[in-house]
Amino acid sequence: MSADRSDLNNLVALFDRPLEPMVRVKGDKSFKLPAEYVTERYKNNAIEISNRFGEEASENVTVEKVPIPDLGDILTLGRKENFSLFIPKHREISAKLINIFLNASDSKVLLSIATYVHDRVNPYLFIYSFSVALIHRPDTKSLKIPNQIQTFPDKYFDSKVFTKAREELKVVPPGLRRPIEIPRDYTATDLEEEHRIAYWREDLGINLHHWHWHLVYPTDGPEAVTKKDRRGELFFYSHQQIIARYNFERFCNSLKRVDRLLDWQAPIKEAYFPKLDSLVASRAYPGRVKDMVLQDLNIPNQAIKVDVDDMLRWRDRIYGAIAEGAITTADGKRMTLDDVTGIDIIGNILESSALSLNRPFYGNLHGFGHLMLSYIHDPKSHHLEPFGVIGDFTTAMRDPIFYRWHAFVDDIFQQFKGTLPRYTAEQVSSIFQITPNNFS
Amino acid sequence: MSADRSDLNNLVALFDRPLEPMVRVKGDKSFKLPAEYVTERYKNNAIEISNRFGEEASENVTVEKVPIPDLGDILTLGRKENFSLFIPKHREISAKLINIFLNASDSKVLLSIATYVHDRVNPYLFIYSFSVALIHRPDTKSLKIPNQIQTFPDKYFDSKVFTKAREELKVVPPGLRRPIEIPRDYTATDLEEEHRIAYWREDLGINLHHWHWHLVYPTDGPEAVTKKDRRGELFFYSHQQIIARYNFERFCNSLKRVDRLLDWQAPIKEAYFPKLDSLVASRAYPGRVKDMVLQDLNIPNQAIKVDVDDMLRWRDRIYGAIAEGAITTADGKRMTLDDVTGIDIIGNILESSALSLNRPFYGNLHGFGHLMLSYIHDPKSHHLEPFGVIGDFTTAMRDPIFYRWHAFVDDIFQQFKGTLPRYTAEQVSSIFQITPNNFS
Repeated sequence: MSADRSDLNNLVALFDRPLEPMVRVKGDKSFKLPAEYVTERYKNNAIEISNRFGEEASENVTVEKVPIPDLGDILTLGRKENFSLFIPKHREISAKLINIFLNASDSKVLLSIATYVHDRVNPYLFIYSFSVALIHRPDTKSLKIPNQIQTFPDKYFDSKVFTKAREELKVVPPGLRRPIEIPRDYTATDLEEEHRIAYWREDLGINLHHWHWHLVYPTDGPEAVTKKDRRGELFFYSHQQIIARYNFERFCNSLKRVDRLLDWQAPIKEAYFPKLDSLVASRAYPGRVKDMVLQDLNIPNQAIKVDVDDMLRWRDRIYGAIAEGAITTADGKRMTLDDVTGIDIIGNILESSALSLNRPFYGNLHGFGHLMLSYIHDPKSHHLEPFGVIGDFTTAMRDPIFYRWHAFVDDIFQQFKGTLPRYTAEQVSSIFQITPNNFS
Repeated sequence: MSADRSDLNNLVALFDRPLEPMVRVKGDKSFKLPAEYVTERYKNNAIEISNRFGEEASENVTVEKVPIPDLGDILTLGRKENFSLFIPKHREISAKLINIFLNASDSKVLLSIATYVHDRVNPYLFIYSFSVALIHRPDTKSLKIPNQIQTFPDKYFDSKVFTKAREELKVVPPGLRRPIEIPRDYTATDLEEEHRIAYWREDLGINLHHWHWHLVYPTDGPEAVTKKDRRGELFFYSHQQIIARYNFERFCNSLKRVDRLLDWQAPIKEAYFPKLDSLVASRAYPGRVKDMVLQDLNIPNQAIKVDVDDMLRWRDRIYGAIAEGAITTADGKRMTLDDVTGIDIIGNILESSALSLNRPFYGNLHGFGHLMLSYIHDPKSHHLEPFGVIGDFTTAMRDPIFYRWHAFVDDIFQQFKGTLPRYTAEQVSSIFQITPNNFS
């Protein structure tokens, strides 16, 4: 596979205005779609719309007609709903969509399929799956894809920014507009102890980093995107580093080390009100009030059903495996957790990813912890509420509870590492080139 | 005072696009403001903006320069905050603004002042105060002011409507646009018992009615707008009728009569998630989760400080007055609650309005009940959260707790009515023209 630069740039243009249809100009390109690609809504006025924005385009791109794979249940996630990779159903359909994009025979076919999918699939789901495909395809991996702050600023900025921006755009002609300042300190006051480090949790860079990590390491999808060397270990390592860095920031702000979230029947003292508004879902990310308690979840629309007791069982089975030094695989065999691959195995089980060696038995502890926290305000979906920021990996790091949950997750790994034998003098010297002489 | 029709129409144009500045066309009118009226932001580009929208205007309106009254603390409410007539500070500044509008010597001066105020004052506060003034001024009271659904649809419609509308507006040229359907059933499922009558609580008409009632009967302001015949009694009567009608609707849906909210230390079982998004404040109206408990409020930004114990004291003093058949006035005198004026006196005390005969002693029971419920998720303002729908009289009737609170309020009135002597046969026959012969 190979692709020329202009084909690649056409792909990048699809990140522009993800909520608006392909008949509108994207970036500086006007895409001419096969008639069958245009959705019912725009079938009869594609030309008028294209003309309306004509002067924004400096280039026409003719999209070739190719056979379109069946989108099937990828379409079950509505266009105007929120999307979360913690929700198993969403993972599953994103894996299918990633596969469709990976299987496109060349970048022109990919463009054709993507323009068709763009107007039919949920925009968050589209951008995520398309991004994963672009960074994993040999012919597109050199592409610099736009960062998510440009594509979905609603996941990063105070909702007030958008009203100001709209006023400026709607009222003031181009050339006379003024920059809008992005507020940095707006979710709480310092009367709330945890707010002292909100500047760190709500930092654009740290949240982008977290999004990008999960883009490079999807939990589900074809093996080309999931089966990476030491994937599970890297899940441990990257999140352990985040907790370490967070604790350091806490010390600098006279806060103690973050407490593990251990008691799942006790009230959670950390409240959080993100003040973010999903532009796709047209719903605010709900807040969490002080002293809420985890509840059994039953969210029929998202096919989520999990009890706190399920979580306790998964937790205890994982602790059991660590204490025994071996897991039980899906086919009922014992597999030893050694000092080379053990942490990788536990990482995949705990996260969990498609590489988990026994999802039915060890469950999805880390992921369902996020979900249980994110639906704590409406655990039975009686009120049709969306999930909170902790249920969305692009926003989860804003919430103080992220760190309490991950301190618990990290502690499981530490428990395992405590069972490993010390490095021998030979191992240390061969790896680090350290000999007694270094210290003399 | 008199005003010609075109002057009146100019006033109505100010209801158009309340978030956008006067330099933009309003309705079909392009207002030419004195240079001093234009805010700093638009001073240097008023002409360009005016030209940008020029073709929308069919008429130029030259606004005369008049002396502008000092706006003082009316400006303390930010342009992008929510506004509530339950918040004493907001009542106070709205009373001042109403006064400014009422004192304008004629409708041309009123227009001048209003165009100046429009771009400087919070849009909700502006529209409310301007509306009260228009319906109370002799020279403008014949005006049909736009209903609030047109001015602030965000207080009435599912937030999803606005994204759909924006997509349609931004993408599709005029003439080809399709209507957007307003969802009617979106805040919960029927698994939530109280949702059975959500269609009634979230009805556009009922909420508009409630807004309009309070527009006609402001609690605070100059006597011209507050001191109306039997104002306090009408507060009782209108809300009693709402509860009666609500109970009837409940019976039709196999629900029992609404319970009074009597125990202010107990968890409140009714949860409510309004799914409304304030376009002015760019903040969603927060939801209330199940089983929250009323808390002492301390909201420094809004100068609200009230304990549950304050509420208990006010309640017991009012019950005490009813039991004794007399209130204590602000100057320490006893005033008998008789069968003609008693209910009016209690109404003003309980609501409370500026006509309360002793606010320091009887407090603001009904109003602070709304506030206490509306800030239940962030009672100390640690999280800088806005109030919930129950704290805003344009949205309060959506929330099931409105009816539990008003069933309690209504019961106080019923308690008083129970102390009144029966009508005599003479009274009944003189009022209703009923004699024994009617029944024969």
